[in-house]
Order: sequence, then structure tokens, then C-alpha cells
Amino acid sequence: MSDLKNDRFLRALLRQPVDRTPVWMMRQAGRYLPEYRETRAQAGDFMKLMMNPQLACEVTLQPLDRYPLDAAILFSDILTIPDAMGLGLYFETGEGPRFAKTVRSQVEVDALPIPDPEKDLGYVMDAVRTIRRELNGHVPLIGFAGSPWTLATYMVEGGSSKDFRAAKTLMVTQPAVLHALLDKLAQSVTSYLNAQILAGAQAVQIFDSWGGALSHAAYQEFSLAYMQQIVNGLIREHDGRRVPVILFTKGGGQWLEAMADTGADALGLDWTTDLGQARQRVGSRVALQGNMDPSMLFAPPARIHDEVARILSSYGQGSGHIFNLGHGIDQHVDPAHAGAFINAVVELSGAYHAV
Amino acid sequence: MSDLKNDRFLRALLRQPVDRTPVWMMRQAGRYLPEYRETRAQAGDFMKLMMNPQLACEVTLQPLDRYPLDAAILFSDILTIPDAMGLGLYFETGEGPRFAKTVRSQVEVDALPIPDPEKDLGYVMDAVRTIRRELNGHVPLIGFAGSPWTLATYMVEGGSSKDFRAAKTLMVTQPAVLHALLDKLAQSVTSYLNAQILAGAQAVQIFDSWGGALSHAAYQEFSLAYMQQIVNGLIREHDGRRVPVILFTKGGGQWLEAMADTGADALGLDWTTDLGQARQRVGSRVALQGNMDPSMLFAPPARIHDEVARILSSYGQGSGHIFNLGHGIDQHVDPAHAGAFINAVVELSGAYHAV
Repeated sequence: MSDLKNDRFLRALLRQPVDRTPVWMMRQAGRYLPEYRETRAQAGDFMKLMMNPQLACEVTLQPLDRYPLDAAILFSDILTIPDAMGLGLYFETGEGPRFAKTVRSQVEVDALPIPDPEKDLGYVMDAVRTIRRELNGHVPLIGFAGSPWTLATYMVEGGSSKDFRAAKTLMVTQPAVLHALLDKLAQSVTSYLNAQILAGAQAVQIFDSWGGALSHAAYQEFSLAYMQQIVNGLIREHDGRRVPVILFTKGGGQWLEAMADTGADALGLDWTTDLGQARQRVGSRVALQGNMDPSMLFAPPARIHDEVARILSSYGQGSGHIFNLGHGIDQHVDPAHAGAFINAVVELSGAYHAV
Repeated sequence: MSDLKNDRFLRALLRQPVDRTPVWMMRQAGRYLPEYRETRAQAGDFMKLMMNPQLACEVTLQPLDRYPLDAAILFSDILTIPDAMGLGLYFETGEGPRFAKTVRSQVEVDALPIPDPEKDLGYVMDAVRTIRRELNGHVPLIGFAGSPWTLATYMVEGGSSKDFRAAKTLMVTQPAVLHALLDKLAQSVTSYLNAQILAGAQAVQIFDSWGGALSHAAYQEFSLAYMQQIVNGLIREHDGRRVPVILFTKGGGQWLEAMADTGADALGLDWTTDLGQARQRVGSRVALQGNMDPSMLFAPPARIHDEVARILSSYGQGSGHIFNLGHGIDQHVDPAHAGAFINAVVELSGAYHAV
């Protein structure tokens, strides 16, 4: 595999010196880009696009053609694992993801297979290999998976939920069943991320989209413990390089110290957390990724520029910050505003890395 | 007005000694109670129930007949103020609140009147007076209002929202318009809560349901600053007693120190915050109200009992804790489980107030 031409992102994740703050955007390959909408229309629908390695590679690379981004992220979905377990993932227009089957009993948990990544999720591994080849060392490729708790919410509810009533009812009435499901998911995610790493992912991120819905105590027991299990089982070095792992719990700003204790290399922050205060709390134990409110991209470019300046200044001098949004980019954003955001990071961040 | 037979709630809000931890539940007069559903059916719909002082009093008192609660809370809705401003509040079945008109420009903000509570919201003041009379000093009555930011989200969006796109777009494109709206709402809420106090409310709570959707910086500027304006303008003593004010920002666990700086008497906590850590952070400056995950009421009573014990132990010895859920009680809860929760607080909390 070719050498990396831009390793700013990987270096910042390990808190090594960089010339400027690296930047990428969650959901950067997405509906706000007309070229994405065209490829998706060509594929037919989201599922077909995601399951076609060539087209998944094409949309992964689209934002890199537009913007000076410092990382690519595999175009996929967190629900590939439950789908490979046989739950029957589908999308209804405007309704979000749905599963044909739910999992709410010990018998149903016991019946779930642990997917073999190359056999059952080969389309994802093929996409990783294709993207790595096409990237040709331009920037690193990020692999990802959903956290066990986040995946479990969809599997128990049968889709998205506002209040996670079914998942939380399972938690408080049959905690052993939920633990068995989470353990099986932690094993599946570990093997899935390791396969992505072996296929070419140079960093991995665990998306804990719904950990923030839990109580302080339940977060530790039902979400963080299983992310810890994954971190413990991940390949941490491959091809002569450290493979950094990023934990992102949306709404997890109160739990950063415990998240840093897992041994992850970096934590993702949503926009509710003050970046400077977060840095004080975690010290030099982990890098921090984030955290502009995605809705700031609806602002005029001059206002976006000011917000980037404010966030850079909040983190302060030195490496260990990867600029990102605090959540995925909204489909209604003007691509020119995304460009203004990325350009502001490129323009303003060098001053924070002066020798 | 008659003396209070049970002032445990008011004393705990002021961190004065109590015999046991007081308890009430947000949305305790609500759909989980069959007697509430009956009164609501009799009224016709939610709006007619809320606007009828006699029926509003009836449902306010219903949970007190069932459970040994330490406070009553006015049965009403946070959206009475925008409705009195002329926006035309209505409810569509299963859709949540809607407004006939939205507010998105300076002209529209300028045209909004500041409601006169006794004239434009007389049905609320009549309800407060009726409830106070019927309570006859049994427990204190809590008045309430929505925070300016929370009210503004509904007014700008025209109803509920998942991501507050319209409100946040207004924030980043025309911040002066949003500030003008928030200032007008802060004036309206202040006069509305003061009228509730004069009519008989013995404590007031400001519900900032959506402050947690803001960035750390935007929270201070667009939500907390206007709650500060309200706290500054409230009647703090009436009828020979301190009238405590409680601030509750759902998702505001990262901002407790700043919330305590407003001079409020107490802060409401959702379930994501560890109560013991919160107490360490705010010290003796404010009392704390909360914070069991409402979904815990789906657990068997023995599990609810354990969770109450855990939360009491987390707060520890002494006054300054008002037990509550971290958000409103869910309509699907079995009333017997709500009873188990309240009884557990009554049974277990005395040990934390031993002399």
C-alpha cells in the first residue's frame, strides 16, 4: 500500500505535532451534495448504493474532490451488522431505518449469529479495499461501526425511536437479556472493525448515537462497558502504524473522563460541550474531535468563519484537536457553506501549531 | 390564605432542614391516570381542559388523592403565552402542539403584544386561585412557564421540531431578530409568573425543555441570559414567605454552575447527570431537584425501590434535594408503579435527614 501523502489526521489523533488542525465532516458523503444525489439516483436507493462497493467508493471520494479534507470516511451505515444478523434492514421514505424483525427475548438473542465480516459483510470490506486503492494515499480512510447500545436500540425498537421505550423497558425488566444482546453486538463490532482495519481502514470511529439518552449509571453499564470491550479487542497497530480509535457518544459531554479511561485515542464531542473545558478535563490522555453545531452551516460564511475562530481559540495551542461538526452535516446545507467552514479551518488553524 | 400543613417542599428548596426528602413528579396530573383521561374526555380535548379553571383544578388535585406527594403543580401548558400573543395554538392528534402563525422577522416580532396575565390569561390565574383554595394548605402549589428560548423554538418552527432548523437558522442569520423575540418573551414570562405568584403559586419552575439543543456558547447567550432576566424580575417574597424559583434545562447538566449563578433557588436535573457530582459542583448555592429516568417506572416495583435508594445515596445526607423524575411521567406508566416510586422516597429518605 502506498505511503500517506497527508497524515495530519492520524498524527493529531495521537497528539503528535501537525502544521495545522485537520478537518473532516461526519456524513461528508451525503445528500447535501448534488453529485451524491445523482449517484444515489443511479443506484436506485440508499441500500443499493451502500451495498455496491464501486458506487460506495465513488460517493466516499466526492467530498474530497470539492474540499481540502484531511480524511475520508467509508460510506456505509451503522445498521449493516443487525442486517447481517438477519433482522432485515429497510428504509421507508422519510421514516428512517426499519427492521423486519425485532429482538426482545433471550431466545431471540440466542438465535442471532455473530456475522463473519468477509463472508456476511463482504460488500463493506470490498468497499474499504476499493476506497483505499482509489485514495492512493491522498488522505487516511476512517472505518466505523455503531456502538452496541446504539445498535441494540434499533434492534429492540424495530427502528428509530424518540424515547427508546421498548429498549429501556427491556433494560429495567430483563437486564440479563439486554446484556446478552450487547455482548453479542460487542463481539460482532470488534470483529467487523478488525476486518475493516485489515482491509485498509487507518482509523476507526465508534458511533454511540444514543448513549446520551441513558442515565449516568446506565451509560456506564449498558453502553460504555461494551465500547470498552471493543476497544480491548481491536487491532491497535497495522501495517507499521498505530490505528487510532475514536469514541463518539452524542450527548456524552458529562462522561468524558470515563470515556478517556477506556484507552481510546480520541473522543468525539457534540456542540454542547465547551472544547477548552473538555481539554482541561481529559488532559493529554486523548485527542478531541469536534465540535461545531451543524446548524452553524446555515449561517453566512463570515459568521461561520467567526465560529471556527472561536472553537480553535477555545482548544488553544498545540496538537490533539481534529476539527469536525458536532454531528452529521444536514442535507439542506449549501455546499458552498461547507466549503467556507473547511477553508476557515485551513486558513486559521496554522497559528495554533506554530513552533 | 390558610397555613401550609406540609411545607417540606418549600423548605428543601431553601435547603432548610426537613424530616424526609420531598417528592413530586413532572406531569403528575396526566394521561397515565384513568381519572385524568375521564376528566379530559368530559372537557372534550386538552385545550378545553386547560382553559377550564374548575376542571384544571380537578386534574391538578387527582394525583394528590392517590399518592403522598409534597407539591401540586398547576395543570396548564407552556404554550399559553404564545397563544395569548395571537399565534393560535392547537393540537393535532398524535402530532403535538402547532401554531397557526409563525414568527420569523423583525416585523412579526414587533407586532407581538406582551400579554396582560389577568386580562389575556385570566383562565390560568383563575385556575391558580381555584387550586389554592381547594388545596386548603395541604401542600404548596407550583406555578410554571416555558423558558424564552423554548417558547421561541415553537413560535419560529410553528410547532415541535427534531432539529430546530428554522429557529437555529434565525439564530445564525438574524440574531438580532431572535434576541428581540427572546426579550419580549422574557418580559411576558416575568409578568406571567409574577401574576401566578400573586394569584397563589408558592414556588415557580421555568421549563427550558430545549436549551440542551444549543451549543455551550449559544446556551449562555440565547437561553440562560433570558432566564436570568426573568429571575431578576420575579417577586421573590410574597405573603410572608420566600417564593423559590427552579430552573430546569433538559440536557443542561454541563452548565449547572452557570445556572446556579443566576440566583435561582434550585436547579432541576435530568437523569443523565449524577446527582452526587452535581451537588459537589454547585455546593450549597442551590437545591437540586430530580432525577430518576422516567423509564425506570416501567421496571418492577422492587427495581424502582433500588433505584430510589441509589439516587438518595448519591445525594447523601442533609436537605437540599427534592426527589422527582428527570422529565415528565410517561403516559404508558402503570399508576401502581408511580405509587411504588413515591412510597420508596417516603420510606427510604428519612435516614438522610437524621438529626
